[in-house]
Amino acid sequence: MKLATLDDGSTDGRLVVVSPDAERALPAGQDWPTLQSALDRWSEAEPELRRVARLLDMGEGPPLPAGSILAPLPRAWQWLDGSAYRSHGELMERLFGTAPPPAGRPLMYQGLSHQFLSGTADVPVLREEDGIDFEGEFGVVTDFVPMGVTPDEAMGHIKLVVQINDWSLRTLAPVEMKTGFGWVQAKPACSIAPFAVTPDALGEFWQDGRVHLPLIVHWNGKPFGAPLGGAMGFGFHDLIAHAASTRSLCAGTIIGSGTVSNDDYRTVGSSCIAERRGIEMLDEGAPRTSYMKFQDTVRMEATLPDGSPLFGPIDQRVVAA
Amino acid sequence: MKLATLDDGSTDGRLVVVSPDAERALPAGQDWPTLQSALDRWSEAEPELRRVARLLDMGEGPPLPAGSILAPLPRAWQWLDGSAYRSHGELMERLFGTAPPPAGRPLMYQGLSHQFLSGTADVPVLREEDGIDFEGEFGVVTDFVPMGVTPDEAMGHIKLVVQINDWSLRTLAPVEMKTGFGWVQAKPACSIAPFAVTPDALGEFWQDGRVHLPLIVHWNGKPFGAPLGGAMGFGFHDLIAHAASTRSLCAGTIIGSGTVSNDDYRTVGSSCIAERRGIEMLDEGAPRTSYMKFQDTVRMEATLPDGSPLFGPIDQRVVAA
Repeated sequence: MKLATLDDGSTDGRLVVVSPDAERALPAGQDWPTLQSALDRWSEAEPELRRVARLLDMGEGPPLPAGSILAPLPRAWQWLDGSAYRSHGELMERLFGTAPPPAGRPLMYQGLSHQFLSGTADVPVLREEDGIDFEGEFGVVTDFVPMGVTPDEAMGHIKLVVQINDWSLRTLAPVEMKTGFGWVQAKPACSIAPFAVTPDALGEFWQDGRVHLPLIVHWNGKPFGAPLGGAMGFGFHDLIAHAASTRSLCAGTIIGSGTVSNDDYRTVGSSCIAERRGIEMLDEGAPRTSYMKFQDTVRMEATLPDGSPLFGPIDQRVVAA
Repeated sequence: MKLATLDDGSTDGRLVVVSPDAERALPAGQDWPTLQSALDRWSEAEPELRRVARLLDMGEGPPLPAGSILAPLPRAWQWLDGSAYRSHGELMERLFGTAPPPAGRPLMYQGLSHQFLSGTADVPVLREEDGIDFEGEFGVVTDFVPMGVTPDEAMGHIKLVVQINDWSLRTLAPVEMKTGFGWVQAKPACSIAPFAVTPDALGEFWQDGRVHLPLIVHWNGKPFGAPLGGAMGFGFHDLIAHAASTRSLCAGTIIGSGTVSNDDYRTVGSSCIAERRGIEMLDEGAPRTSYMKFQDTVRMEATLPDGSPLFGPIDQRVVAA
């Protein structure tokens, strides 16, 4: 099942169920005006939303008004972003001179969640010199998760899978990292691709709490990378259990994978510029590729292997704020 | 003006205006059912709330039902906690072996905001060995703050002042700090004292974006500290400008001061246990005081010098989750 949030002028938009081919949509119904309202009572909402999805499967539903799609959650009460791809971590340690993390513990920070941009929104930034970078990620959305949940139990709390562009300001990142307090200035609002999907929509490509599909990234129209999502060192269920070790997670918590990255990055490319700069440091002794300029674009999409749409594309332009 | 949120069974409660002596309250009115709704349109809400406050000044209003007070914001879209007291930072660096921060930059992290406990709620923790500690802080609540705001402009966006207990799990804190990603496990939900007050309610004790009052802390009924709030190295307006450097802040953003601490900590005491342990390391070579046990209590209050109530007390017990 595919869900989207349409712009109706309100902050949280209006929830619709979308056909698998992403061509048509039907309202989720008055009991579930927003995705947050459905997540708050997911066990009641899911069967009703799946009933709407069956109507779409039978050909019902008007065309989806593509231009009016917001992020599935235009804001959320909690966004916890992991960094679960070890090859990404190693390149960042090289680039920024930071220490490797303790073994056996996922990396995670709490980020800005009061705004998630749509997958096609312009991205306003004040200063090019802050080092504007995209970061292609997968993410999951949970229902309520009790404190102390195990990874096995956490798997059942993964209700939706999403695709995220975690915008980053790289000049500010190492300064904030060295304080130990994590990132505030280096992490403005993320963007989320149009469709949040239930794990079953991924079929065999959802396994071990991981998305086993490549994330295809283009920067200014040129291929930049296509790393596989399955290479996470910790699955999303592990990340949820880590996050819920000392807190319960509210319904609608979004958990991020961190930048999708593979060990054979020289072959598959990257899903952020900083990683390419790390590779250049390894290969050429210094980074050569600059970060994004105003008017630069980035496109990221993970489809099913037959090319059929899944999350829909993120396709954005950076603009001067 | 004093505001509080009463428990009406809903997550966000019901906004009331409270008399200066904290004895009586009147509903904020149907246009402002919750504090968040008032902050979303503060320029319209404030005159109406002040009209209700004048009725209270004239003796109107039934007794405030003290047992049913929630945190002023039982949840918020954003909680950014600073660490603006340098004497606290120095003691933590001593205790945890961390590096001092870069000069001229406030320290800040983004924390859990989907739940704020009331000032009298029991605090559920899974494990005593996680190092349970209180942290007495002041905080401010903003309306919408545009990206790139200056400290001077930021002063005008401080709409309410609050008093916070930033619960911390000290065994986990240095492990997370060393990753550079900041705290997730080490920072469960904070608590907020019953009353959010407009800056004018502090009179001359609100100056330079700082609360110039002592925060009186008792642990298990015994005096523990009374540091002055005015010793912040950065004012709240500086912290807001720092936070808004690369993002806009949504209405209802809560900004924390960090643990209130003074240079003469041996005289005035502390507002967290970790700081006392840092002092013991300095004076005796090793920390001696243990963190909290289940059933321990902590009380924190900042009144006006004549003893009249301001934020109301935080008075909580730690319990096994």
